[in-house]
Formats: sequence, C-alpha cells, structure tokens
Amino acid sequence: MKALVLEEKLRLSLRDIDLPLTLGPNDVRIRIGRVGICGSDVHYYKHGRIGPFVVNAPMVLGHEAAGTVVEVGSQVTDLKPGDRVCMEPGIPDMTSRASREGHYNLDPAVRFWATPPIHGCLTGEVIHPAAFTFKLPAHVSLAEGAMVEPFAVGMHAATKAQIKPGATAVVIGAGPIGIMVALAAQAAGAGLVIVSDLSTEKLVIAGKYPGIHPFDIRTGPLAAHVAKLTAGWGADVVFEASGSTKAFDGIFDLLAPGGTLVLVGMPPAAVAFDVIAAQAKEARIETIFRYANVYAKAVALLASGKVDLKPLISASFPFDESIAAFERAAEGRPADIKLQIVVEEFAS
Amino acid sequence: MKALVLEEKLRLSLRDIDLPLTLGPNDVRIRIGRVGICGSDVHYYKHGRIGPFVVNAPMVLGHEAAGTVVEVGSQVTDLKPGDRVCMEPGIPDMTSRASREGHYNLDPAVRFWATPPIHGCLTGEVIHPAAFTFKLPAHVSLAEGAMVEPFAVGMHAATKAQIKPGATAVVIGAGPIGIMVALAAQAAGAGLVIVSDLSTEKLVIAGKYPGIHPFDIRTGPLAAHVAKLTAGWGADVVFEASGSTKAFDGIFDLLAPGGTLVLVGMPPAAVAFDVIAAQAKEARIETIFRYANVYAKAVALLASGKVDLKPLISASFPFDESIAAFERAAEGRPADIKLQIVVEEFAS
Amino acid sequence: MKALVLEEKLRLSLRDIDLPLTLGPNDVRIRIGRVGICGSDVHYYKHGRIGPFVVNAPMVLGHEAAGTVVEVGSQVTDLKPGDRVCMEPGIPDMTSRASREGHYNLDPAVRFWATPPIHGCLTGEVIHPAAFTFKLPAHVSLAEGAMVEPFAVGMHAATKAQIKPGATAVVIGAGPIGIMVALAAQAAGAGLVIVSDLSTEKLVIAGKYPGIHPFDIRTGPLAAHVAKLTAGWGADVVFEASGSTKAFDGIFDLLAPGGTLVLVGMPPAAVAFDVIAAQAKEARIETIFRYANVYAKAVALLASGKVDLKPLISASFPFDESIAAFERAAEGRPADIKLQIVVEEFAS
Amino acid sequence: MKALVLEEKLRLSLRDIDLPLTLGPNDVRIRIGRVGICGSDVHYYKHGRIGPFVVNAPMVLGHEAAGTVVEVGSQVTDLKPGDRVCMEPGIPDMTSRASREGHYNLDPAVRFWATPPIHGCLTGEVIHPAAFTFKLPAHVSLAEGAMVEPFAVGMHAATKAQIKPGATAVVIGAGPIGIMVALAAQAAGAGLVIVSDLSTEKLVIAGKYPGIHPFDIRTGPLAAHVAKLTAGWGADVVFEASGSTKAFDGIFDLLAPGGTLVLVGMPPAAVAFDVIAAQAKEARIETIFRYANVYAKAVALLASGKVDLKPLISASFPFDESIAAFERAAEGRPADIKLQIVVEEFAS
Repeated sequence: MKALVLEEKLRLSLRDIDLPLTLGPNDVRIRIGRVGICGSDVHYYKHGRIGPFVVNAPMVLGHEAAGTVVEVGSQVTDLKPGDRVCMEPGIPDMTSRASREGHYNLDPAVRFWATPPIHGCLTGEVIHPAAFTFKLPAHVSLAEGAMVEPFAVGMHAATKAQIKPGATAVVIGAGPIGIMVALAAQAAGAGLVIVSDLSTEKLVIAGKYPGIHPFDIRTGPLAAHVAKLTAGWGADVVFEASGSTKAFDGIFDLLAPGGTLVLVGMPPAAVAFDVIAAQAKEARIETIFRYANVYAKAVALLASGKVDLKPLISASFPFDESIAAFERAAEGRPADIKLQIVVEEFAS
Repeated sequence: MKALVLEEKLRLSLRDIDLPLTLGPNDVRIRIGRVGICGSDVHYYKHGRIGPFVVNAPMVLGHEAAGTVVEVGSQVTDLKPGDRVCMEPGIPDMTSRASREGHYNLDPAVRFWATPPIHGCLTGEVIHPAAFTFKLPAHVSLAEGAMVEPFAVGMHAATKAQIKPGATAVVIGAGPIGIMVALAAQAAGAGLVIVSDLSTEKLVIAGKYPGIHPFDIRTGPLAAHVAKLTAGWGADVVFEASGSTKAFDGIFDLLAPGGTLVLVGMPPAAVAFDVIAAQAKEARIETIFRYANVYAKAVALLASGKVDLKPLISASFPFDESIAAFERAAEGRPADIKLQIVVEEFAS
Repeated sequence: MKALVLEEKLRLSLRDIDLPLTLGPNDVRIRIGRVGICGSDVHYYKHGRIGPFVVNAPMVLGHEAAGTVVEVGSQVTDLKPGDRVCMEPGIPDMTSRASREGHYNLDPAVRFWATPPIHGCLTGEVIHPAAFTFKLPAHVSLAEGAMVEPFAVGMHAATKAQIKPGATAVVIGAGPIGIMVALAAQAAGAGLVIVSDLSTEKLVIAGKYPGIHPFDIRTGPLAAHVAKLTAGWGADVVFEASGSTKAFDGIFDLLAPGGTLVLVGMPPAAVAFDVIAAQAKEARIETIFRYANVYAKAVALLASGKVDLKPLISASFPFDESIAAFERAAEGRPADIKLQIVVEEFAS
Repeated sequence: MKALVLEEKLRLSLRDIDLPLTLGPNDVRIRIGRVGICGSDVHYYKHGRIGPFVVNAPMVLGHEAAGTVVEVGSQVTDLKPGDRVCMEPGIPDMTSRASREGHYNLDPAVRFWATPPIHGCLTGEVIHPAAFTFKLPAHVSLAEGAMVEPFAVGMHAATKAQIKPGATAVVIGAGPIGIMVALAAQAAGAGLVIVSDLSTEKLVIAGKYPGIHPFDIRTGPLAAHVAKLTAGWGADVVFEASGSTKAFDGIFDLLAPGGTLVLVGMPPAAVAFDVIAAQAKEARIETIFRYANVYAKAVALLASGKVDLKPLISASFPFDESIAAFERAAEGRPADIKLQIVVEEFAS
C-alpha cells in the first residue's frame, strides 16, 4: 500500500510498502482521511531518532489521524462501516501491571504509530483495535478528528492538573502544544488563562481565543504580570509547555501557595530545579507521558462547541504533496500551528 | 438602621432596628447595593424555622448581597472605600478544628446571615470581615455580585465533583440551584450537561444556555436518555439538585462505572438508598454544606465571561417594596429563578 | 477432574467434572493447595442465586485459593513451575472502557470464579492468566495465600477510604469482612480502630489484635463511644461492613466533619439514608465492588508481618470432607471466621 | 524569665530575658517540660541565619516542646491546668487566604518559634493558642511529646504521599528527618520501607525498627536494590530526605510507573532535575513546607503504640546544661538522632 515512508537514510519517499492488514476479531479497518504532522514526525525526519528510538529501517510516518471505518472484526459491536473516527496511536498490552492500574500509557510494551520500529498511519488504510478507535459525531469533521491526538496531550495535562473551577492558569509556551494545553485548561475550568511566549505570531494566534490572555515575555517578567492579575496570589496552576530549560528560572514565583505545576514540555537537558522555592509554595508537580483515557472526552468537548480547534489548522496538503508538507513543517514557521495531509479527499 | 425584619410572629416589616455597626481592625463597612431572595429566606418567612434554627426574636432577612465599601478597618490592606464587593454570608471561627482543616463551612460556631439568631443583610449598611469580602471587577455589576452567593453553591458542588474535562454531567432539578449547578459544572469542564425537571418553564430557562440539554422527565425515563446520549456508558457525574426523595429511585442507573453522585438538594425526609446499585457502579457520593473557598473563583468566572448569571435575575424590586418582593417569592412562580431587591439604586 | 460441584438442585457432590484446561500463551497451570469458603459460596448452596446470578447448571464452588504453579504459557516470564501463588478470581476483559480507566473490577463482562455460569476453583488444577496470579514469598503459607481474596476486600475498602495516617476509623460489623476491613484500615494508617458488633464471640476475636478496640453495641450507643474516644470530633472514616439496614440509623453521627463513609456491606434492601445529616458533615461516601489492583500490596503486607491473618482461620478440612466443611459453614457459628479446605495436603 | 538565648553575636547564654506572658482568652499558659534540639536551632547558632531569616537581636531558641498547662484563657474549654501537652510552634493568621484554604503552614505571616525575630520555647513558661496545643494521653511521656514536632514533618510528608496500603516506599537519608519519614510512611500503610544512607551508624538505628530495611549506598546502586525487591516494578513512593543534591541523580529510576516523589530535604542549591525521566514514569512530585493538621493524628499514633519514637532520643540534658547540649548537637555525631533538654525535671 502507498505510504509516506521515512527511509533509513532519512529521505522521505511516497511509495508502496508492505503493511500488515489482517483484521482481528476486535479490530476495525479504517480508510485514512486526514493526518496531522507532529513535531516528532519532523524530528525523526531531521534527526533519525528520539531518545532510544532509532530509525534503522524504513518506517511509515504519521500518528495524528482520522478516517472512516470500512470493515469491523467479528467481536466489534460499537462501530460499523461508515463511522467516521479518530484513533489513539498507541496500542498497549492491556494486561501489563501499568495498564491494569489505569496507566496504559506507561506500559513499556506499548506499540505507538511512527515510533520505530512501528509504522505510522500516513497511508491509505490501517487496522486498529476498536477499543482505541473513537466515533466522531456528524458535525465534527475529519480535519478536527485528526486534531484530537495533539489536543489529547492538552487534555491529559489539564486532567492531571485537577483545576478547580475559576482557578487561574498560566501556560508557558504558545506553540502547538501550549495552545492545546491552554484550550484544555480553559475547558477544564480555568477562569483566567495566561499564555506566555516570545513569538508575536504565536501569541496573536493564542490571543484570538476569547479568555486567553497572551503575554510577551520580552515585555517584562511573567511573575510580576501574574501577580498583578491575581492580586498577588499567583496562579493556581502553571503548565510548562515550552520545553525550554530557561522556563524553570523562577518558575515557582508564578505559583500560588498550594499550587500545581504540570510539566508538559520536554527539555533537551536536565533543568535547574529550586527545591526550596517549590517547598515554600508547597507545590505539587505533575508530569505527563502522552495521555490515557481522554479521547472520548476530547471528542465530547469538540462536539459541544466548547473547544474549537479548526483555527489551528494552518494549511492542508493533498497526500501526493506529503513530502512538500514535511519540508514546510521542517521550516518551523512560527504561525504554522498544525499542517495536515488530506489522504482521501472525499472523506473530509 | 432601616431593615427588612421578620418579626417573631412571622410578619414582615420594613422598619428601623438596632444593628451592631462597630468596625473592627480587620473589618470593612459596606453600603448594601443589591440583595437576592433565597428559598431559605422565604422558608423562614412561611414556617419560622429550618431544622434547629427557629425565629424567636425579630431578625433581619437576606444573605445574598453585593455593595460598596465605605470604610475599612485599620489592618485592612486589600480593600478600600469605593470598592464594589460581594460577601460570604457566613463568618466562621477560623481557629476551630474544622476551619483549620480547610472546612470552615463546617465550623459549628459559624455565624451566618439570616440564620437565627444572626441578622441578615437586607439593610443599608453592614460590617463584615475583609477576609470574607470579595472585590468585583469593574465590568461585573452589583446585580451579578449578589448572584455569587447562590452560584457559590453550584461552584462548591462542581468543585467537589472533580469533573474531568469533557465528562458528562446530569443535573436533576432545574430550579435556581439546579441551574447554578449546571452552569458551574459546565464551566468546570463538563462536555455534555443534561438538566432534568418536570417544569416546562424551568427547562426553557435552563435550555437557553448553549450546551445545556434540558430533559423533561414526563417524556420518558432519564436513565434511558442518558444512556442514549453516552453510547450506554452513563454520566460521569450526577448532581441531585431537586431535593425530591423520588429523585433517588434508580439514581445509580444514570451513572457510569466509577462515577460520582453529588447530593446538593436537601430532601425533607430520609431517602431510600440502594447500596447494592451504588456498589455495582462503585459510585463515589459527595455531599455539600454551603461552600468554602469558592467566592474568588466564582467572581473570576463571571469576570471572564465564561458564566453569565444575568438571565437568571427574573425581576428586581426597590428596597421600599421588599415586602412585595417576598410575597412574590412566596408564590413560587416557576419562571422566577431569582428575585432581587435594590437597596441603593445608584450603586448597581 | 474431581471437584466440589453444586448441582442444579442445590445438592453438593464431590465428583469428576469436565473442566477446560487448555493453557494459553499468557496463562499458568496451578495445582490448587488451599481454598477458603466464602459467604457467597454458602449463599449459592442455600439459595441457588445471588441477585441476577442463578445456578441453573452444575457449578464448581470456591474462589479463595492459593496453589503451586505447575506449568506456564509460552509468553509468561514472571512466574515459573514451583512458584507458590494466590489468584484473583475475576478475569476481566482488559480492553473494556471500565478496564482501560483502571476499574477492571467494574467490567460487566468479568468472568468470576463460582459466579454462575463460571466454575470455581475447588478442584485439583486450574488454568489462570499470569496477570492475575501473584507469587507468595517463601515465608507466606498457602493457607495465608488463600486468605488474600477476602483480605483484598478490606484492602480495597481501606484504599478507597484514603485514610490519613493517625486517623480514627470505625468498622461496623465484626464478621469476616469487618475484621478484614479493620486490619486493612489499621495497616493503612488508622491510629485508633473501633470495631462494633453485638456478637461477643466475634468481638473477642477482633479484640485480640493489638490496637483494635471492640465495642458491643448492646452496651450503649456507638456514636457516644466514638465521641468520647475522639474528644467529640468523631471518626475520620467509618466502614459499614455489617450489611445491616439498621446500621444506617444515625450513621453520620459517628463521623467527623469532612469524614468518609465506606459502604462495604451489602444490605438486603434499600436503606434509609439521611441526606441532611450527611450534608451537615459534608460526608464523602465511597462504595466498593470487589477489588482491583490490591493483590500485590496485600501480599506485601502479609510478607512484612504488618498483617497476620492466620488467627482468622478457624478450621481446615481435607478435600474429601469438603461437603462437611460446607455444612459447617452453613451453620454460621459466630466464632468461625474462615473455614478452609486443604486440596493438596503437601502443598501447604 | 530564664531562657536559652542566642545573642546577636551568635553566642549562647542561659539568662533572664523579658518575654510576653499575657494570657489571651483563647490561650493557655504552659510550663515547659522537654525541648528537643533541631538542626535549624543549631544552624542559627552556627550561621546566624537561614535564608531570609537573620538573627539580629537576642532570640530564645527551641521549637520542639512538650509541657504542662498551668492556666487557661477565659474561652478555652478543651484544655485545663494539669493537662500534659505538646505544641505546634507556628502560629498563623487563620484569616489569610492560605489559611482559609487549609494551608495555614503556608501563611506568610506565620509566627514560628525560634525563627527570627520570634522567640522560641527554651524557657520556663510560654503562652500559646489553645488551637495549636494538643493534649497527650496519660501513657505518652513529655519526652515523646517533644518528639511530635519533628515527627510531624514525617507525618505531613506521608500524608501528602497518599500511600496506598501495602505500597513500597524508599526513604533517601537516615538522618533524624529520614527516620521520622520512614516511621510515618510505615504507619501510613507502606508494606516495604527501604531507607538508604552512607552512615553505618544511622542505618543501624533505622534498621532496628522491624520492617525498615536499611540500605548502604556504598554497597551498590539503590535503584538496582529497589528493582530486585519489587520484581522490577519500582517504589510506589520515594521520599527525598537527605537534602543532598546528589540524591537527584537517577532518582526517577527508583520509581514505579505512576509513582510519587516527595521532596522533604532542603538542598543547599538548585538540583539537576531530569524532566524526561520524570515524564517517562509520569511521576507526581509533592513538596512539603513544615506541616499542617497532623499533630492530633501524630499523637494518636504514639498513643496507639504503632509508632515508637523513644529509641530516637539519644541523650537528655538538664536545662542548666543547655549550652553543653547545643555544643554536642553542633558536633553532629552520626548516632545522635535527637538530643533533648529537660526544662522541668519532675514534669517528664
């Protein structure tokens, strides 16, 4: 089947490749509609590895997908051909101890799309377990469906934050993930949401959402701004979504007593962490690894109209121009929040 | 000072009464602007008691108030004359064990406005601790400020529910508290909010809010409706806000596995509770008593525009017509969500 | 294979019966050593049904078991022949939504030993998933291993209670489950544990454990006793483990402000529940359904010596006398906490 | 009144000093019995400051005390002369926002014994709020009562950890606080408790407690040891109680998926924190600042016999030898867990 393949020598090719397409009793067969390009896809393309995961055989890219069910396994009862769906890209061993305890995202044996050596979904058709396939309501498009994966990261962060309704949230970083976190935090109850960055383009996009307050850190210290907006109390929740080691300088100054810091970004090196400052606030720090059990709830928020991800789709490319799409993603234009590839035109 | 007084014989009179007006160092003096009429005010008027609290001396009514600071005590630093504010009506002993543990609402020594023998706030001026007085932003009116008290009940219920973003919530009862709970649950992260009642008028008011789905229980079983909207999973959170003993029949059929039931309504008698049905869902049941630590966050939600309480103010009466206002409240018209009394016209 | 079979006409027979013994790749084959008799086994024997579960075909009884691994499937890496183990008797579908969310005990498709039509483990050998089979350390006997199942109920209750270290716990009911709950609550951090009952025999057994305070409810009101021992504050956690509807009379009088009630017992009918009294304490009520994710931790507590279940084994019977063992269990002698059947003598 | 005074020039003198001894209506007057010497007392003696708190006027030392009530204020009902008590050394403003939210330990206006410029309790008599004074049962000595303050740190850490019963805990550091944390974690439900250090003397003391497993980090990597004892799963909770920056190297290797790290120690500089490693375990990190709401529960654990702090009192000195006691404390002998000063001999 035709697919966007990252070759071992880190060259992209759009070509036929053998993919396993046997339908098990609990699986569904899905015709891929839309696929978003993630920073990790681009990272594999540019660097050939992320941590211990190394591209040393041809690998199909892509893990943010929506599509249409075309066939269901014999035991599948809650999906049927014609259903429009989005998919969790990780397939864990559900009998592992981590999975049994509700942390299936932490199962070390998880098979995750486009994480070597597992193939991704930038191809015409995939087989996927029904348990990790989620129906989209009629008024949610496949383009939005393919946004559920990155939004799931924000959802998981916002869920772990346990935001009290009306709380103040600060999101450090207005990149794709920062904006997803800000929207999820707002939907999750935050009354005031401040998003900081040093890119004017990114802050403009974030600031178009009502209730999201952009703050350019080149204009002054973020902590003073937060203090001013909260009468000196501080933010109840701070999300670090920039992945910058610098973000940790004075990060606990942002926080209210008893507040929570959620670490979403993945800094390239160890950060300098001020334990005493954290203790003075008695901060709780949550970390997240991908997501678990948020897809159905993410779809519900899109369906309800509380969250609108459409403005974040910066451009779409036909499947035949996948390589051009990746080249543009590799440029890293500041206003490109999400680029998508339309695998099957009619499906969207 | 002139006040709306409930006399011992349960007659209302608008007359002068001696009230303690000494300003302590941590207190503020507030000119009352608006006061909402609560079901408990009406209940004292009609029945002279609520549980152990009996009206056996003249008592000023009213506990839902907003106003303007006119003087501050010597130790007060965060409020100043001219600030527009709303007030928590209960003043606990903050050194009690319950208060120390963060449950100041459960302090048995709490002094609560218009709960005998404590006077309420339907008068020109009150003295109040600064710690329980909350500044309103410029664009939040005193009318909205006086809505914070009933909304705080919804906020506390939604906070205790620990709603995950995108979760499904059902609110049983579309009375004033039911609607407050629904709005708070929605602001707190619920994706789908279903409100049930058997009053067409109330359901129409609730249903005008985008994302609130009214359900008339005269048209069929609520559980079947919830099952249909959630693909058989059930509601993640159910709020009982009707205070009807009948609401408990089959209430756990509404709930998803691992779901939460929050008991907000106060049924007049013990209810029949099906322990086995609760266990089959491994339900968590939360109960609330008034509220604690939600006022600042409630004001933040009004300020952000996420929650709009203005449509719930059904009618306003000048202070001189307070008695007429109470007579109308006593009628219990189904479309009267909240009646307010304008104590000082210019202030609103 | 020879097994203790409950025939459709509710007669017990110790006879050969065909059982599925095919070893899957993730399964282990276990020679059964010890099996405890549970109240539910006796209930099926006496009444032929529990709720919707009806004995309408011969069924092997027993679900509290420990034994020795004799063979492992091709994918099993953490167990090997010779390992002494105990087993969770329920096998859920781990891909169901409830299981994915960490509540595998709530999966409606769970297959539970000796719950019709699923056979139990009172036989020589069983096949079981390795994921639900737990190794016993060298110094924990098979007799103790077979106690893990009932203790798991207490563990799950104590886990859900979220007991703070040093908290006061009350356990209503000193039957087998009540004692298990009391021991788990004590191990889980309770400083003072009060167990109430009206059976002198049961209270004597409970009271032999240091730190467990028995209270005979025939000698006066439990609430007054708790108030006295807690300087009027009340119990931080109350476990209802009697299954008596009467236990709910005034149950919230036992509780401290902000306290937790855990419903473990299964009353035969709806109980009268005083919502107002629960709200006055702002009680949290947790319910439990069997258990999830507690076996490894239960074994750790036995291994550490913090919990000693051996005194609760009232008598043991050889496999050939299984029917006599059930007859004695059916008598319901107050001092019989747990009766066990030794399936394979040498194994214990 | 005679007191142990730290003079501005960091010289100790046992001399008379004027102390405020006016009894307020909610206060009690306490004759001091025993006072423990804390590392912070020694630090002020040696260095004259801790962070922003500088000794620039004579200050009475000591904050770990127990004594006997000799007079009570007019509003005090739950204490009476003759009661033996221990005291929380911090007196917060209970109306501050942090206090109202249940975090009175985070109130910036807290007045804490022997934190400049507030005098401590190494003197004959103190006035203290009844709300922060806790009665000791008859069989708990004043010597044990004076241990409640350092134990409270362990209690608060163990409470925040939310240890599930039977969980595995690792405590890094076997100093006074490390041992307190280990005992609290054990009482709070941990099944296996591993304490690491590189001091043989300290490990011997920790290891005398049944169920506490000492581990000398000079013998090999702690992570490998934990992996071995937990069949590769890791520790559910890790407490960092050494205050060493080195402890953070590979600290997340100790942790199970979904585990919790509690930061108790106060490292002298920022630590290198591996965000990616924390995320791979989806670690929750809790920090603590002193303690709140644990004294009553700590006393309950001493009273129940679950926790025995007596072996940790290494030596006692009469009040007249206070300076010698401080000199010895300043030596930092590895086997000196706690030194105490007997202020009033007959009282213990």
